[in-house]
Amino acid sequence: MERVRTGIPGFDELLGGGFLPQSANLIEGAPGTGKSTLGMQFIHHGIAACGEPGLIHTFEALPEQYYRDALSYGWDFRRMEREGKLRVVMTSPEVSKADLEKVGGRIERMIREIGAQRILVDSLSHFERLAGNAVELRSLAYGFVNSLKREGMTVVLTRESSTLLGEDDNNNDMLAFLVDSYTLLRYVEIDSAVQKALLVLKMRGSNHDKGIRQFEITGRGIEVHAPFEGRDGILSGSPRRMIDSFRQAFVRH
Amino acid sequence: MERVRTGIPGFDELLGGGFLPQSANLIEGAPGTGKSTLGMQFIHHGIAACGEPGLIHTFEALPEQYYRDALSYGWDFRRMEREGKLRVVMTSPEVSKADLEKVGGRIERMIREIGAQRILVDSLSHFERLAGNAVELRSLAYGFVNSLKREGMTVVLTRESSTLLGEDDNNNDMLAFLVDSYTLLRYVEIDSAVQKALLVLKMRGSNHDKGIRQFEITGRGIEVHAPFEGRDGILSGSPRRMIDSFRQAFVRH
Amino acid sequence: MERVRTGIPGFDELLGGGFLPQSANLIEGAPGTGKSTLGMQFIHHGIAACGEPGLIHTFEALPEQYYRDALSYGWDFRRMEREGKLRVVMTSPEVSKADLEKVGGRIERMIREIGAQRILVDSLSHFERLAGNAVELRSLAYGFVNSLKREGMTVVLTRESSTLLGEDDNNNDMLAFLVDSYTLLRYVEIDSAVQKALLVLKMRGSNHDKGIRQFEITGRGIEVHAPFEGRDGILSGSPRRMIDSFRQAFVRH
Amino acid sequence: MERVRTGIPGFDELLGGGFLPQSANLIEGAPGTGKSTLGMQFIHHGIAACGEPGLIHTFEALPEQYYRDALSYGWDFRRMEREGKLRVVMTSPEVSKADLEKVGGRIERMIREIGAQRILVDSLSHFERLAGNAVELRSLAYGFVNSLKREGMTVVLTRESSTLLGEDDNNNDMLAFLVDSYTLLRYVEIDSAVQKALLVLKMRGSNHDKGIRQFEITGRGIEVHAPFEGRDGILSGSPRRMIDSFRQAFVRH
Amino acid sequence: MERVRTGIPGFDELLGGGFLPQSANLIEGAPGTGKSTLGMQFIHHGIAACGEPGLIHTFEALPEQYYRDALSYGWDFRRMEREGKLRVVMTSPEVSKADLEKVGGRIERMIREIGAQRILVDSLSHFERLAGNAVELRSLAYGFVNSLKREGMTVVLTRESSTLLGEDDNNNDMLAFLVDSYTLLRYVEIDSAVQKALLVLKMRGSNHDKGIRQFEITGRGIEVHAPFEGRDGILSGSPRRMIDSFRQAFVRH
Amino acid sequence: MERVRTGIPGFDELLGGGFLPQSANLIEGAPGTGKSTLGMQFIHHGIAACGEPGLIHTFEALPEQYYRDALSYGWDFRRMEREGKLRVVMTSPEVSKADLEKVGGRIERMIREIGAQRILVDSLSHFERLAGNAVELRSLAYGFVNSLKREGMTVVLTRESSTLLGEDDNNNDMLAFLVDSYTLLRYVEIDSAVQKALLVLKMRGSNHDKGIRQFEITGRGIEVHAPFEGRDGILSGSPRRMIDSFRQAFVRH
Repeated sequence: MERVRTGIPGFDELLGGGFLPQSANLIEGAPGTGKSTLGMQFIHHGIAACGEPGLIHTFEALPEQYYRDALSYGWDFRRMEREGKLRVVMTSPEVSKADLEKVGGRIERMIREIGAQRILVDSLSHFERLAGNAVELRSLAYGFVNSLKREGMTVVLTRESSTLLGEDDNNNDMLAFLVDSYTLLRYVEIDSAVQKALLVLKMRGSNHDKGIRQFEITGRGIEVHAPFEGRDGILSGSPRRMIDSFRQAFVRH
Repeated sequence: MERVRTGIPGFDELLGGGFLPQSANLIEGAPGTGKSTLGMQFIHHGIAACGEPGLIHTFEALPEQYYRDALSYGWDFRRMEREGKLRVVMTSPEVSKADLEKVGGRIERMIREIGAQRILVDSLSHFERLAGNAVELRSLAYGFVNSLKREGMTVVLTRESSTLLGEDDNNNDMLAFLVDSYTLLRYVEIDSAVQKALLVLKMRGSNHDKGIRQFEITGRGIEVHAPFEGRDGILSGSPRRMIDSFRQAFVRH
Repeated sequence: MERVRTGIPGFDELLGGGFLPQSANLIEGAPGTGKSTLGMQFIHHGIAACGEPGLIHTFEALPEQYYRDALSYGWDFRRMEREGKLRVVMTSPEVSKADLEKVGGRIERMIREIGAQRILVDSLSHFERLAGNAVELRSLAYGFVNSLKREGMTVVLTRESSTLLGEDDNNNDMLAFLVDSYTLLRYVEIDSAVQKALLVLKMRGSNHDKGIRQFEITGRGIEVHAPFEGRDGILSGSPRRMIDSFRQAFVRH
Repeated sequence: MERVRTGIPGFDELLGGGFLPQSANLIEGAPGTGKSTLGMQFIHHGIAACGEPGLIHTFEALPEQYYRDALSYGWDFRRMEREGKLRVVMTSPEVSKADLEKVGGRIERMIREIGAQRILVDSLSHFERLAGNAVELRSLAYGFVNSLKREGMTVVLTRESSTLLGEDDNNNDMLAFLVDSYTLLRYVEIDSAVQKALLVLKMRGSNHDKGIRQFEITGRGIEVHAPFEGRDGILSGSPRRMIDSFRQAFVRH
Repeated sequence: MERVRTGIPGFDELLGGGFLPQSANLIEGAPGTGKSTLGMQFIHHGIAACGEPGLIHTFEALPEQYYRDALSYGWDFRRMEREGKLRVVMTSPEVSKADLEKVGGRIERMIREIGAQRILVDSLSHFERLAGNAVELRSLAYGFVNSLKREGMTVVLTRESSTLLGEDDNNNDMLAFLVDSYTLLRYVEIDSAVQKALLVLKMRGSNHDKGIRQFEITGRGIEVHAPFEGRDGILSGSPRRMIDSFRQAFVRH
Repeated sequence: MERVRTGIPGFDELLGGGFLPQSANLIEGAPGTGKSTLGMQFIHHGIAACGEPGLIHTFEALPEQYYRDALSYGWDFRRMEREGKLRVVMTSPEVSKADLEKVGGRIERMIREIGAQRILVDSLSHFERLAGNAVELRSLAYGFVNSLKREGMTVVLTRESSTLLGEDDNNNDMLAFLVDSYTLLRYVEIDSAVQKALLVLKMRGSNHDKGIRQFEITGRGIEVHAPFEGRDGILSGSPRRMIDSFRQAFVRH
C-alpha cells in the first residue's frame, strides 16, 4: 500500500514506509519530548518534498510560535503560507468542533482552499475541556478525527503526557483505541543524562518495527537512531543494565 | 466435548481445542495488541472453514474499517457479506441492548437470517457509558451476553485496557467473572523491543494450558508461538532475566 | 474438635481437619482461580461422603451452569437435587437478605426441608450493590452470615478479587474480619506460565498450616499439592528465585 | 515505673515490663494476625495472675464468640464472669460513646461493679461509622479513650488493617498519635509460608526494644520469639534475603 | 549569624549551630518518632541553659501529659511553670487562630507575661480541621506562624505523618514551603529492627549538613549520632545494603 | 541566537548560553531545593552584570524575606531597589492577574518605570487557588505568562513540588507544556546524605545539554557541578550503584 511519508529519518522505516493515507496518527509524550516538532516536520515534508499542502491546527500556542520554532530547523513556514501551501490556525476546541460539523465551515474551507492533504492537531489534549468525562471525550475526539479523515486528510494528533518518566497513569481516555497508529515519545535516564526514546506501539493492518529507538532533535528536526542495547525496562524511563554488565563481567571476561 | 475452533494457530491448542459452544469469551488488551484481529479471525474461520455464519457487532469503527482491515489479512468480508454468511453491524450500545431485550429485534433477526453461530462484540467497553457504576455495568453486560448465548451463539467480547504495560488498575468492573473464558493480550518489553504475549487465564470446566505465549500479527492474522523462556515477571510487561544469565554465567560456563 | 471436611485433597490437612462446625469461611480469588469449584466440591463432599445435605445460593449464574460445571468433575448435582439432598437457588441479594430476616422464609424453609448442613454463597461480592459503603456492607454481610450460622449451617462464602496478580487494593470492605476462616486463591507466574497458589491466612482458634501451596483443578476437582520451593514473594504473584539460583550456582556447585 | 503486665511471653519484655498504668495501647493487624487473642490474653492475665478484673467491649462479635475462642486457649471466661471478675459487653459504638459521656453510664457502672482495671476495646475501627471524616474520628476516639483512662483503666484497643502484606495505605486516621503505645502485627512471607511478626513501634516515655519479632499463636495464646535474622524489608511483608545468601556463598564458604 | 540552640546533641551541629532567630521550624514524623520530645527538649534547653522562657501550645494532649513525659527525661516542667519561665497551653486551633489575630489576645499576653522567646506548636496538623483544602490550610498556617514570628518567637512546629515507612503521599499541604527549616524524622528497618533517622532537608540561607543521621531517644532526650553507613535508600525506610556486602565479599576479601 | 544569561556557573552552559529572550522558564522543585535562590540569582545577575533591571513578584513571602535571603549570598537588593533597578512586589494572584489584563496596571507601570527586562514569579503554584481545575489553571497561567512576555520580559517561574524524592504525581496541571524551558531541581540520596540534582528537561528550539548535574547552594548562590557518575535511577531520588560496584569488583579487580 502507498504510504504518507513523514520525512523523518528512521521514523518512516519504523512505520513500514510512512503513515497510512487518510489515517489518524497519535503522538504522545511529556513536555519537551518533541511532539510538535515531529508534527511540524510531517507538515513541512509534505509541502517541501511531496507537493502536499498542509494545515497546522493549534489551540494554545500562537502561529508566530510555530513560525519561529520551524525556522530554527530551517523550515520557512511563513513563505509556505504566503505560497498558499500552509495554513496555521489557532482557535478554541469548541469552535473547531462546531466548525467541522457544519458544511463549509472555516477549516473545511481552508482545507479545500489550499488543497491540504496533511493536518497537525496540536494538541488533542485541549479537547478535554469540552468533555465531562472520558467516554464523552472519546466520542468528541472520534467525531472530530473522522470528519478530518472524511476530508481526505492524513492526521497527526499530539497528546500531552503529564508523567515525565514511564507510563502516564492519568491518561485513561482511551484515545489510543480510535487512531490508526500510536507512537510514544519517552524520556529515558541513561548514564546520568536524559535521552529520548520513540516506539511505534500500534500500526493498523501492518507488521511494523516494534523496536524502541533512540532519537534526537537536531538542527534539522528529529532523527531516529538505533535501538537501545543491553538494557531492560526502557519504557519505565529508568532502565537496568545488570545483565549486560553481568555478561561482561562473567562471560566474556 | 466438542469445541468451537478459532482457527488461530496455537490458540486453539491453548484452549484445549477451541472455545466451548455457546460460551462467552473475553479478550482483553491495550491498544494495538490485536483484540479486533483475533475476533475477526474467529469470525472468518467460522465462515471459511466451519460453515458457521457470523456477526460482527461494533459501536465505534465503521463497517468499512473491518472490511479494509480484514482484507489486509486476506479475508474478503465484503464477499462473505454478499453471500449471506456475514453481517457487520454498527450501532450504539443503547440500541443493541434494547434490541436484544425485545422479541424479534434487529440483531435477533440478523442472527436468524444468516443462521449465525458466532458473534464478535467489539468492544464491551462501550457499555460503560450505559452504566452508572461497576455493579450496574456488570448486570447490563450479563444480560446482553446471556441473551446472545440463549440465541445459541459463541461470543467473543473484546475489552480495552488503558494500561500499556502490566495490569490495568482501572478495570475493576468484574466482567471477567461472568464469562466462560478470559484471555489476556499483553505488551512485553524484551531486548529493547515490544513483543506480544497471550495468556488464557480462565477457561470454565477445563484444564487448559496456562503458559504465557509469544504471538505475532502476520499477513495471515494472529499466530501464537512458544512460551517465553528464562524470564520472570512477563505479566508485568517488563520482565527480568537475571536468573537465566546467572545460570549461563555460573553453572553452564 | 470435630471438623467439617471439605473432601478436597490437601485442603482439609491445611485446615487442621476441615472447617469448624457452624463457621463462616471466606474463599477469595481472581476470575478463574477456582472459588466456585472449591465451594461445589465442599457441597458435593458433604452429600456424597458425609450424609450432609447442602444448598448452593447464587446471585448471577443460573442453576444450569452449576449442574454443567459440576458434571465436568463427575458430580451429578441434578440427581442429588432429585434425591432431596441438594438445592441450587438463584435469587437477588435483596430477596435473600429479606428472606432470612423473617421467620419461615424461603431459604430457611429449604434448609429445613432437606436438612441442609452446608451452604455455598457464590458470591458475597453481589451484596455490594445493597450497601452504600464499606461499613454498611460489613453490617449487611454480618447479619446475613449470622442468620445462616444460627440455622446450624457451615457456610462457604466466595469473594471476587479484581486484581489478577498480588493483593487486591480495592477490597477494603473488611469482610475478612467477620469470618472464621479466610483462604486466598492466587495466580503466580512461574517459568512463563501461570500457576495457582492457595493459602489459609486465618483460621479461628486453631494453629493451622500457614504454607503457601500449589494447587490444580483436575477432572475430579481441586487438588492441593506441596508448597512452592525456593522462591520469595509468591503472594505478589511474581516471585523471585534469585537466592535459589545463587545457592545452586555458588554453594552446591 | 510500675508496669501493667500482659502475661504474653516475650511481649512484656519488648514493652520494658508491660504497658504503662492508665495508658491507651493500640494493636493493629490484618485479619487473622491475632489482635483479639492478644487482647483477651491481656484481660485473662489481669484476672488470673494479677487480681485485676477486666472488661471486654465489642461491637460485632457476640460474647459467646469470646467465651469459645478463650476456651480454646484454656481461659475460662464464663467462670470468670460468674465470679464477677469479667464482663463481656457487646454494644454499638453510638451507645458506648453516649454511655461514657454521662455520669453513671452502663460501662462506668460495670467498671465500678467489678472494680475493672483493664479493658479490651475490640475494635476501634467500628467507630469509623460514627465519624464523617478522619479529623472527626480522631476527636471521637480521643474522647472515648480519655474517659476510659480517667476511670483508671489500662486500655487495649485493636484496629483492623485491610492490607494483608505491608503498610495499610487506607489507615490515615492518625489514631496512632493519641495512644501511649502502638504495636503492629504483620504477616511476612518467608520460605513459601506466612509467618507473623510483632513490632512495638511506639512506647511513650520509654526506651523500648525496637526489634521485629516472630510470634506464634499456640494452644496457650500468643508467644513472642526471637527477631527475624538475615532479612531486609520484613515490614514490607515480602522480605529479601540476598545479603545473607551472598555472605554464605562468598564470605564464609 | 547568632543561632538559637536546641541543646540536642548532634542536632545543633547539623543545623549549623541552631535554628535562626525568629524562624519557623517544621519537624515531621510518624507516630513515635519523637517529634514532641524534640520540641520539649528545645523548650527545656531554652529555659534551663539560655535563660529564654518558652511556651508549649498543644491542641489535643493535656498539659499533664507534657509534665509527665518531660519528667521521664529529667525535665521538671511543673517547677519551670511555677517559676514563670514556662506556660503549657491547650486550646482549640480555632481559638488560637482568633487569639493571635487580635491585639492583646491570650497567647500574646502569655508570651509577654513570661517574656517567652521560644514556642512549641504541637501539632500543626490540627489546623487541618479549620481549612477546607490545602490552599486554605497553607494560608491559615502562614498567618498563624507569621504572627508568632512577629512577636519575636523562634517557633518549632510539629507535623504528623500517617505513613510509617518512607514518604507520606498524603501530605500535599505545601506547609514545608513556608517554614525556614524542615526536619524529617523517619523510621528505618535495619537488621530486623526499627531504627530512627533524622535529616535536615531545608535550612533557609545556610549551607547546612545534609547527612541522614541515626538518632535515639534516651533517658536524657534525643541524641543524634553518626550517619548511616553502607546503605542505599534509607529515606525509603527499607534500605538495601547490597553494595556494602558486595564490597566486603569481593573487594576487601 | 542571543541569550539571557543567568550568571549561574554551569547552568548557562547547560542552557546553551542562557534563556531565550522573552521566554518563560519554569523551575520546579521540592521545599529547600533552591528554586527562589535560582530566581533571585537570575534577577541579581541581570542588574549587576548585564544592566537589565528586574522585578520580583511574590505571593506569600514578604519583600523583607527576599532582602535578607539575598544578602546572605552577598546580593544587596535594598540598594538595587533604591537605585531604581529592582522592584520586589508582593500581591495576591487575583490582583496580579487583573492588573496585567488592563492597560497601565501596576505591574506594567513598574516594568516601564524601571525598564525591567527580567521577572521572577515566585511561585506560580499560588495561581492554583484562582482556578477550579487543571484546565482552567493552565488557561490562567497561559494568559498571565503571555502578557509578561508581551511586555518584553524574560520570565522565571517557580513551581512547588510536594514530593520530596522522585516525580511529583500530584502535578498534573500541564504547566510545563506552555513554557519555553523546564528545569527540574531534585533531591537525591547518595551515601547516606541528601544531594541536589539539576536537569534541563525541555528547552524550546535548542539542542541543550541533557545531563543530570549535581549542584550546591554556596555562600555566593547556586553552582552547578559535574554530572553524577556510575549511578542508575538518579531521577527517582534513590539511585542504585550496583553496576559500578560490579564493575569495580569483577572487571577492574
